[in-house]
Order: sequence, then structure tokens, then C-alpha cells
Amino acid sequence: MPELRRDPLLGRWVVFSPERKQRPQEFPVVPVTSSMNAFLAGNEHLTPPEVFVIRPSGSAPNKAGWRVRVVPNRFPALRIEGELNPEAVGIYDRINGIGAHEVIIETPDAHQQLEDLPQDHFVDVLTAYRARIVDLMKDTRFRSILIFKNYGPLAGATLSHAHSQLVALPVTPLVVKQKLEAAQKYYEERERCIFQDILRHEQKESVRMVYENSGFAITCPYASRQPFELLVMPKRQSPDFHTCSDHELQLLAEALRTALRKLAIGLKKPHYNLILHSAPLRQPRKNYWGTIEADFRWHIEIVPRLSGVAGFEFGTGFFINTTLPEEAAEFLRNVRLS
Amino acid sequence: MPELRRDPLLGRWVVFSPERKQRPQEFPVVPVTSSMNAFLAGNEHLTPPEVFVIRPSGSAPNKAGWRVRVVPNRFPALRIEGELNPEAVGIYDRINGIGAHEVIIETPDAHQQLEDLPQDHFVDVLTAYRARIVDLMKDTRFRSILIFKNYGPLAGATLSHAHSQLVALPVTPLVVKQKLEAAQKYYEERERCIFQDILRHEQKESVRMVYENSGFAITCPYASRQPFELLVMPKRQSPDFHTCSDHELQLLAEALRTALRKLAIGLKKPHYNLILHSAPLRQPRKNYWGTIEADFRWHIEIVPRLSGVAGFEFGTGFFINTTLPEEAAEFLRNVRLS
Repeated sequence: MPELRRDPLLGRWVVFSPERKQRPQEFPVVPVTSSMNAFLAGNEHLTPPEVFVIRPSGSAPNKAGWRVRVVPNRFPALRIEGELNPEAVGIYDRINGIGAHEVIIETPDAHQQLEDLPQDHFVDVLTAYRARIVDLMKDTRFRSILIFKNYGPLAGATLSHAHSQLVALPVTPLVVKQKLEAAQKYYEERERCIFQDILRHEQKESVRMVYENSGFAITCPYASRQPFELLVMPKRQSPDFHTCSDHELQLLAEALRTALRKLAIGLKKPHYNLILHSAPLRQPRKNYWGTIEADFRWHIEIVPRLSGVAGFEFGTGFFINTTLPEEAAEFLRNVRLS
Repeated sequence: MPELRRDPLLGRWVVFSPERKQRPQEFPVVPVTSSMNAFLAGNEHLTPPEVFVIRPSGSAPNKAGWRVRVVPNRFPALRIEGELNPEAVGIYDRINGIGAHEVIIETPDAHQQLEDLPQDHFVDVLTAYRARIVDLMKDTRFRSILIFKNYGPLAGATLSHAHSQLVALPVTPLVVKQKLEAAQKYYEERERCIFQDILRHEQKESVRMVYENSGFAITCPYASRQPFELLVMPKRQSPDFHTCSDHELQLLAEALRTALRKLAIGLKKPHYNLILHSAPLRQPRKNYWGTIEADFRWHIEIVPRLSGVAGFEFGTGFFINTTLPEEAAEFLRNVRLS
């Protein structure tokens, strides 16, 4: 049974998931054969039953014919069944490992990656993200839902078939908490949203801007951790990704697809992590000086893994980056998508 | 010229060091030849002049004959020359990249790793750590000094010859700040040092204890981020590593050497990071409820890099670990050093 343990000093929770040791590590050492690839069309029997799917109406569930399919992870880090049971263990804190761990299979085709999908198919992937959040947020045991994507072994991927992951947690992630607190403090002091200030500053300076449409802006952040890191920010103020309209998902798909294609072409398919940061689920919506609706904005980070996380990064929480975001943005602006 | 930029949301500083792009990336792709290895005895002319050395008295500086040698990094992330110049750039914050970046060459022999060194040579390495901190802390531009070691490419090492690194920074690392604040808060609430509480709890429970001598205890932490992570804690309360006596360095060398040999034998030389956490240099020594002398304790973390840092870790600041520290500690206790 998995469990969560809290670092007594840093408040960082660690998910202990001994069962995951048995999970196949097949990327990149062993190329997966079609019969083994549980994410391939025709192999639906190899996964748990789908919890969400986009397929032509009339086609049978858990059979081929789908475009995007969401299933529980066969090797989940957390278990969906049971009641939350937080407890003290001497000076330490633990919670039994309740949570959801799902896989969003982005395509039935083993030869496509996310950036290869046509625009309408890309929208389906984002629609699946939204649908799963809307469904899981009804579960009062969960405090936060994280959607992320590991592409390539340097980014922690163990399977090459295009997929994202969703983790619902009974605690609020440290990074999310720190971002919320900082955004709230900024708002208290200035009566302005820090995300809007960043967006305006980047639009005005333009040197770190990579792509912009009517709904979204993509920049290389001023203090990028890694070369060619990207920040995808909505122009409409909202703390919650799941409030996106269909039209906004269209615009987001266009922006994200452009960014991922530029990375793939310009940097020859770098391994990367994509992380969707949205407000936690049971955060009080009103705080002393304002509301989370005004001070926090959902956003997406794309972090190419072009340099490692070493002792300096572990020891400081800081990063060393050899590429200025102004150079990275100029390079990416100039990548032709032909 | 390098510069430091602050993430406006998380307060995380990133060191931008474009010059380091030119640095050789030779581990593990190209085995280094003797004539290229600047850390090898006889190649002292390939490094900047030594800033500290342990060598038989009477032997010439910057020539062979030394046991441990400290030199400025040829490809420093930060520059030692100049005045600090923090400034605002619109909504952002930057500082010019002032700092020290040194390499502690642990042995003149390319075939030895840190854990292969005999006890007295291991003490020399720790003596070099202490000497460099004592020297650099006189420089009032620096707020903190981090000593760390990257062993193996998965841990971010680019050179295979045994070495540690030292970075002196004009800002306090986020992780250090968070640890200090948590330790202070714990002390305020309980009038007890959290490090002492952890040590006592681990001694009493003993399941996570790996090694203990009269000066130091080594445990697998309750909320280990990575399988076989180790925490090395002094039994004497002190916030500052550099206050170690010669006798304490003897005991620390014995403990660390045992831990590293157990990792190397039991896990077949895993790549790892070693991080020395000591109090920042210009931290007020007295705070409202007590003093840093009472609430914070220096310590060393050893993090084997047996699993990657992926989207989940980047997105949450949490970790997924497949090995319980109780199992890891039992395994390491049973590794025979013969």
C-alpha cells in the first residue's frame, strides 16, 4: 500500500510506492513491440477500462476506434480506494497513499508524438485534460490535480507511446503552495496580479516572446531554469484551467502545438517535461485582501531537459543555465514550421 | 559576464553563465586521456594556481606531490572580481554574477574515487572543505557557501576525476532559507532543536539507522526523496560546518567513508550528489525566540541518482520513491566492507 510521508523540515511530501518497482522500464533500452504496447489501438484489453474517451459515436468502449483515451495507470503511485487517514508517527507525519493516477493516451498511433497531432486532435487531448479535472474535483478527498507529461527518458519517461499523466493528491504540492502565496502577497501589496504584470512586461519588451495569439502568450521566462524553457500563459485571468471554453482550448492547442513543433524542429526533439499548474481544488476562494480569482492564474511550463539537475540545484533550489532566455526566444521565433 | 536573475514568483535565483557552454562535456562519452586531465598530478599547469593545497612541506606549489588541491574552476559559473550590483529590471530582479566557484581535487590519482581514499587522505579532503570556507567567509560580498559533489553523469558530473565543488553566492539559497525558517519555527514552538529531535527519534527507532560513531549518525531519512538517500548528522549542536575540530573531521571522515563504501559496494557505484548544508554566513545569529546556534544544525545529504527528476517532481516539489528508507537502511547495514 502506498503512503505519503512529510519531510519534517521542508514540508515536502514524498510518495512511497513500492509496487512501482515492478513496472516495466522499456524506454529507451528495449523498443516496445506492438503486442506489448498497452497504449496501441487494438491492445485496449491490456489496460484497465477507460474512464474517459474521445471516439466516434456508436463505437464500442475499450475497443479500437478512439482518438484520445484515459485509463487508470496500471502501476499507480497512489490508490483510489479507501479513506484518508493522516496520522503522526512520533515527530513525523504520514497519510496513506490515497489519490488518482491516470494516463491520458494522446493517440492510438505509436508513431505519432503530441506535436505531430493535427490541430483538432490536439484539442481532443486538452479536452480530455479538462474532462478528467472536472470529474475528479468532485472527490472531496483530493486537494490538487496535477497534469504533466514526461517526453523522453531524460525527462523521466518510461514509455515512448505519446501520453500525459494525471495525479490527484490529498495534499497541496509545495510548488503550488509557494506560487499561490507569492501571488497573493504580490496582490496584497500592489492590488495587481503578478501574472498580468509579467505578461504586460513581456509584451512590452518582446525580446523573450516566442508566440502569441488572441488567447495565449508563450515566452522564455526571465529566470528560466533550463535552456529553452517556456511559459504558456492565458490572457484571460482565471486560476482554474478547467474553466477554459472550447474556443479557448482551440487557441491553447494552436499555441502549444506551435511551441512543441518549434522545439522539435529547432532542437531535434529534445526530451521535455510539460506541467499544467492550476489552483488547488479546496483553496479558500476569498482571502483577506482579495480573491484567488484575481491574484492567481493557471499556466503551463515546458522544461526541455538539456542539462541535468546536479548537486548545486539539489543543494540550493537554484539553477545554473548557460542560455539566456532572450537568445532562446530569438532562436525559437526564427524556427520555420514550413 | 554571468548574472543572477530571480524568479518573480518563487524567489528562486538562476545563475546565467553563458561562458560555461564552452566547457568540455567529456564524461562519459569520451574517456579523458592523461594529457588532457587537468586534475592529474603533473598537469598542474592546466589549472589556475592553487588557492589551497595539502602537500608535504618543502614541495613546490603548483607542482606534483600534493594530496588534495583546490583551484578556481576554469569554467566558473560566477566571477570573483567586481562589486555587487543588485538592480531592478522592470518587475524583475538581477545581480551581476559575483561569486566564487572552486574545485576541490580530492586525489592526484585518476583511478581513485573519494570512497577509495584511505582514512587520513579522506580527512585531508574535509580539511580542505573547512579551510576554504574559513577563507572565503571573510569576503563580505558572500551570503552563503555551498560545497557539493556530483559523482557520475546522472548526477551532473562532466569530469570523472574525483573532485568536489565549492560555490560562494551573494544570496542565500532557497533551500537553505526554507530549512532555517522551519528550524527556527520548530524551536519557537517547542524550545527544542528539530535536528536533535530527528536524531533522538532515529536512535530510538533504529530501523533507519545505517551507521553511528561517537560524533556522527547516518540515517536513511523518513521522507527520503530517492532510494538509498542518506543524511549525515553531527551529534554536537552547531550551525556551522567550519567549527568542526580536527578530531570531529576524523570522525566525520570515518562515517562518510563508511557510507560511501557501502553505497559503492552494495549498489555498484551508483551516481550520487553529496551536499553540505551549513548556515549562511551573514545570518543574524540571534532571533526573537532563540539563536541559530540552538535551532539549526549543519548536515550532509547524499542523494544516489537511481531514479530521475520528472514532471511530477518539477510540478509539485514532491518526489515518488519506490524504496522505503527502512528497507534501504537494512540493506546498507548488511553490506560488508570486508
